[in-house]
Amino acid sequence: MNAGSSFQALSRVLAFGVLLALCAHANAQADPLPSWNDGAAKQAIVSFVQTTTDPASPKYVLPEARIAAFDQDGTTWVSHPMYSQVMYCLDRVGAVVKAKPELAKVEPFKTVVSGNREAIAKLPTRDLYKILAVTLTGMSVEEFSAQVKEWLDSAKDPRWKRPYTELTYKPMLEVMEYLRANGYKTYIVTGGGQAFVRVYSERVYGIPPEQVVGTMGGTKYGYDKNGKPFLTKEPKLLLNDDHAGKPEGIYLMIGRRPYAAFGNSGGDREMLEYTTAGDGARLGMLVLHDDAKREYAYGPALGLPDTKVGRFTQALYDEAKAKGWIVISMKNDWNRIFAFEQ
Amino acid sequence: MNAGSSFQALSRVLAFGVLLALCAHANAQADPLPSWNDGAAKQAIVSFVQTTTDPASPKYVLPEARIAAFDQDGTTWVSHPMYSQVMYCLDRVGAVVKAKPELAKVEPFKTVVSGNREAIAKLPTRDLYKILAVTLTGMSVEEFSAQVKEWLDSAKDPRWKRPYTELTYKPMLEVMEYLRANGYKTYIVTGGGQAFVRVYSERVYGIPPEQVVGTMGGTKYGYDKNGKPFLTKEPKLLLNDDHAGKPEGIYLMIGRRPYAAFGNSGGDREMLEYTTAGDGARLGMLVLHDDAKREYAYGPALGLPDTKVGRFTQALYDEAKAKGWIVISMKNDWNRIFAFEQ
Repeated sequence: MNAGSSFQALSRVLAFGVLLALCAHANAQADPLPSWNDGAAKQAIVSFVQTTTDPASPKYVLPEARIAAFDQDGTTWVSHPMYSQVMYCLDRVGAVVKAKPELAKVEPFKTVVSGNREAIAKLPTRDLYKILAVTLTGMSVEEFSAQVKEWLDSAKDPRWKRPYTELTYKPMLEVMEYLRANGYKTYIVTGGGQAFVRVYSERVYGIPPEQVVGTMGGTKYGYDKNGKPFLTKEPKLLLNDDHAGKPEGIYLMIGRRPYAAFGNSGGDREMLEYTTAGDGARLGMLVLHDDAKREYAYGPALGLPDTKVGRFTQALYDEAKAKGWIVISMKNDWNRIFAFEQ
Repeated sequence: MNAGSSFQALSRVLAFGVLLALCAHANAQADPLPSWNDGAAKQAIVSFVQTTTDPASPKYVLPEARIAAFDQDGTTWVSHPMYSQVMYCLDRVGAVVKAKPELAKVEPFKTVVSGNREAIAKLPTRDLYKILAVTLTGMSVEEFSAQVKEWLDSAKDPRWKRPYTELTYKPMLEVMEYLRANGYKTYIVTGGGQAFVRVYSERVYGIPPEQVVGTMGGTKYGYDKNGKPFLTKEPKLLLNDDHAGKPEGIYLMIGRRPYAAFGNSGGDREMLEYTTAGDGARLGMLVLHDDAKREYAYGPALGLPDTKVGRFTQALYDEAKAKGWIVISMKNDWNRIFAFEQ
């Protein structure tokens, strides 16, 4: 091979490189939010990302300060008719009673193992706390993770007949991915149990355990009979990560104010207030469940049916409008809700 | 220019590229720990990093699981004769009394503003807690950060006549940097106040606020007269991040077990136990202050003088030897302690 033909070969390699670069460019230009219909909600997300990541923008945000917070129940996955973690706790009672048969005769466990859904739904709050205590505490943190994993692998949502972890909203997964591709650190900030969500957050959301802020319980350090140390989950509440507890939990776990926050109910109000009260460009968004056909419809904002799980009141809707938070209509803003949809 | 000379030009460009690549390679081979003398301690760090980051190693650790935990006081900066944060609290009493003159006549504030060091040193623990309460709580989180920043900019250590943040140990900063260059996420895990350390952790250690685990106090969400939300630091202890509180704090803030942990006293014992009880390659290291000339000497391990601040007992030394933790001799393992040394 002489120098000339080498040069031709090299030219072809270079041309191929240019082609690859063009493809990468075209790819970067592809719609990062394909499950979103064009409209104010989608536009708000894209504008926010462009404004805060363009170094020439007066509202540019340094990469290390790019924090985005996502509520989970009703915001990134289905929470109706009941929170998945509560379903876990109810399902788990069977195994607890098997290990401690004396509980089978004691309320509220007697009612739960009876399987009488109506009676279970009527259990008072103090009984629910007893159920949470025996199913979420008293075991080592490794045992707890194994129990949750086992349940996630077998339990199915009664309506969709699918694992709960498949009931995530594809449009919100796209927002998480889009934010991360633009240097944002994404956090779950949930009223649910931090230890529970950490079991699947990496696999389901691409969010590592250290970026899960949730309701926090204490643990106790001790040693097994071989002198090996382990942590036991204690029935001790450190922080209830709901309502005012959300900004408090964010401060505790992150130590800086998010630039974007996503929620769906009154429990997210303070997180959105705190987030959008910061300087510069801030994004606050609330998912409105107004799609009874594809998912559920509840408010009571805009005359939607009232609910006990994830209430979105008219007062919250009015605050959103007054403060420039974007209300996402599941019906109108999302062309696809679940990844498993055709 | 014909094809031949183009080829020659290209060859030169390519050769230059090879040269650049070689330089980068040579750079990568430079000693990442220049302040460490050759010896078992330095070798343990290098071996640990190589073993856990080589994909062909049976003890390879996935990048997302690479967590390293550093105690602060006595491990990454000077903590003698007293913890810097306690110096802050004592210094801060003056400003508190100025704002609330009625405190000047009340103990322990009367003693603190007198400046009588002997009397201050004799204050009982319950009085110290009163001083911590008025200097660390009751203000908004932003006011607190501003107060700490102001102190850090002006206060000086009496022996070295330098800001406290310059009294960091260069060898430990090198270890942090070396671990990060190898995909490790570095955390501070301190008995000191989380909010205090977060003020300077990024600047001093390259560790962002969300990677500071410390003694955690509660905050309270509220609104100012304009309706703007803010968080107030409350005199409510959520977690004392010392002794057993360190693994508990790590579980709370990180949710996974570190692969490496660095400490210097009994307060770090449980963190090292918990870290090194994990599978695969784990690194536990303890800094022994045995250099009275360049820094301080205290134990009482190995017959060194006893101390109330950062005790390293003979029992801890024996546990270290039994469990394969590496004891770092400041005198023998570090050729340089501070960045400001000649």
